[in-house]
Amino acid sequence: MAERLKGGCILAQSGGPTAVINSSVCGAVQEAEKYSQIEGVYGAINGILGVLNEDLIDLKKEEKETISALRKTPSSALGSCRYKLKPEDYEKVIKVLKAHNIRYFLIAGGNDSMDTANKVSKLAKQSNYELRVMGIPKTVDNDLVITDHCPGYGSVGRWLAISVRDAGLDTEAIYTSDTIKIIETMGRATGWITATTVMAKEDEDAAPHLIYLPERVFAEDKFLGDVERVYKRLGRAVITVCEGLKDERGEYITASKRTVDTDGFGHKQLGGVADYLCSLIAANLKIKARFDKPGTIQRVSTVCASEVDLKEAYLVGKIAVRSALEGKTDYMVTLVREGKGEYRCKTGLAKLEDIANAVKKVPDNFINKEGNFVTKEFISYIKPLIGGPLPEYAHLRKVKVEKKA
Amino acid sequence: MAERLKGGCILAQSGGPTAVINSSVCGAVQEAEKYSQIEGVYGAINGILGVLNEDLIDLKKEEKETISALRKTPSSALGSCRYKLKPEDYEKVIKVLKAHNIRYFLIAGGNDSMDTANKVSKLAKQSNYELRVMGIPKTVDNDLVITDHCPGYGSVGRWLAISVRDAGLDTEAIYTSDTIKIIETMGRATGWITATTVMAKEDEDAAPHLIYLPERVFAEDKFLGDVERVYKRLGRAVITVCEGLKDERGEYITASKRTVDTDGFGHKQLGGVADYLCSLIAANLKIKARFDKPGTIQRVSTVCASEVDLKEAYLVGKIAVRSALEGKTDYMVTLVREGKGEYRCKTGLAKLEDIANAVKKVPDNFINKEGNFVTKEFISYIKPLIGGPLPEYAHLRKVKVEKKA
Repeated sequence: MAERLKGGCILAQSGGPTAVINSSVCGAVQEAEKYSQIEGVYGAINGILGVLNEDLIDLKKEEKETISALRKTPSSALGSCRYKLKPEDYEKVIKVLKAHNIRYFLIAGGNDSMDTANKVSKLAKQSNYELRVMGIPKTVDNDLVITDHCPGYGSVGRWLAISVRDAGLDTEAIYTSDTIKIIETMGRATGWITATTVMAKEDEDAAPHLIYLPERVFAEDKFLGDVERVYKRLGRAVITVCEGLKDERGEYITASKRTVDTDGFGHKQLGGVADYLCSLIAANLKIKARFDKPGTIQRVSTVCASEVDLKEAYLVGKIAVRSALEGKTDYMVTLVREGKGEYRCKTGLAKLEDIANAVKKVPDNFINKEGNFVTKEFISYIKPLIGGPLPEYAHLRKVKVEKKA
Repeated sequence: MAERLKGGCILAQSGGPTAVINSSVCGAVQEAEKYSQIEGVYGAINGILGVLNEDLIDLKKEEKETISALRKTPSSALGSCRYKLKPEDYEKVIKVLKAHNIRYFLIAGGNDSMDTANKVSKLAKQSNYELRVMGIPKTVDNDLVITDHCPGYGSVGRWLAISVRDAGLDTEAIYTSDTIKIIETMGRATGWITATTVMAKEDEDAAPHLIYLPERVFAEDKFLGDVERVYKRLGRAVITVCEGLKDERGEYITASKRTVDTDGFGHKQLGGVADYLCSLIAANLKIKARFDKPGTIQRVSTVCASEVDLKEAYLVGKIAVRSALEGKTDYMVTLVREGKGEYRCKTGLAKLEDIANAVKKVPDNFINKEGNFVTKEFISYIKPLIGGPLPEYAHLRKVKVEKKA
């Protein structure tokens, strides 16, 4: 019977690290250890490259405490890669799987990784080699289709909510300088990450005042008008922008004219938009502006990790193993939000081929009409994902002393 | 008797916000409330501008819980400024102090703020107006002379230790991209902040691999050689650089050729060095590099605040009030490290005129001979200041599976 397929299990991590991808590995390992038909639990070092190079580690030889501690360890403990399998690699991959009698192959990653998983499954089928392949969703970009959201996303959201709130208080404090601050967030092709910065906002006057997503064409004159309006009202402005903003010709907004690098999947390495926009503001509005670009720091902080995200990341790792044990293959585990009241989330399954290489953009009803902020609908969506409330800060009443001088 | 001088007390915050400057205000307010001769505790809104504009708030009208909550609230709750008093302001300042019978004036800030405090004290003396003026040290830059260190510094250090460690793990994880990461830290004219990043380093191969401070002339060819050496050994490099690096002609290393802005004290607003160095590496070493520039986020995070720093910030606020009550004036409270064993720190006093406008650079024995890292002596200095140990992460043993394919 298929349910009793005996053999080893490989876990791989792929793509950009997150605060919670190790929590998924923890969930998967702890679940795998429950089943006698899983005869070895291996980690592939650096994703699919670990399989290709037969660079595997024995996860059963780790202390139980170490596996538990993965839940609060950032980045990808098994190493990661951005490597697209080439036709000349196929034979070697199957050879390695067979040599170790690997029957379960689990990969945590984004849409590229699901493409890799799908490819490995097809290769196994072509070789008449029984292999169960499951995808574990992971991406701060939150751009996987079908799933309600992606593990990793809630934590980058929490980090940005806290950090943009802090940076906003910083800007508010200094009366005579740094009156405009631009914070550049990650986001390859979608504005999901940038949108989370709205959670920093405690009241109408608090940061962020403007939010720009790549789902809308970026127009410089409109941007300058928006900034000027906020500045005239408050004497300051905190603006969050996605690194992937594009103009009406589809060109990236970028300061430096240096070559835009591409990674192994042909994705462009972006950044520089905030720097450029500071110059634009200085030149046109004659207002001083500075920028913060937290870069990779935003995506791997476990100090600010969302408890909800950590829990869900663990869950999808566990469910991926359990589903494979139940005979499932060629699926990615999804998160399915239930009902409209208090936040509840269960898991589902989506075909790898439906996830691979597809991108979910921020939908229209999450972006305001002016294209410079997000909507209440988005806030309802993101709020539970960033975990509990943000740390509480003092709010002075500021009772004015009567003027006498 | 001088000790029983009756009157109001003004507290002001000045210069760049920090994670712990509100803790100093908390300490000062809680101390001031103990003494009956302090007849009012006022906050000046936006530093000395609050005095000049008679924009004062009544801190006794705040809830006790709100004052306590200041200890964990980032940025400057009273607002701050970078404003240099002008001769035409002097009369108004004294008029406001007299109108409210202010006899105690306390300002938390860096060397510019101590200059302002010193000036206010002189003005009062010239007007035969009895006023006790005390400075409360505050600056992430850690560049005040005489004091062992400055409140605010330990917390930016803790934030960077955690964030650079995380960013280092992020770089280490991805085998095929982002192999060089440059993290740009604040630091107006000194490398104190950049130097703290050494606390991220858990072992010889961990980030950061190179640290560049403005106390050493930055030479591009030497830098490229350093980077290449690390890269050849590890296949990656994480480099931390100060925003204030200068070349042998004393020119700032900066990417953009846009005008370097200056603030009210004539200090230049820097930034852009990491961006430039990425291009330099790409052009010369043909290695992909990216940068993180956390900017103002690094200096105001209370989530990562150092407990030692929070405590000391509270202490210096308290001691400033107590010293003034004891008849002291024209001093800044200092932190004095005791002995060489377990970390202990007491307070001292330094003349405002000795602090004002002086800058303490990172001393030679804290920088290595090659000028690309810090020494053990620096680590001994910084270690207690960032508070307790960093969060513990899992370290996999990574027992290799024997190759069979």
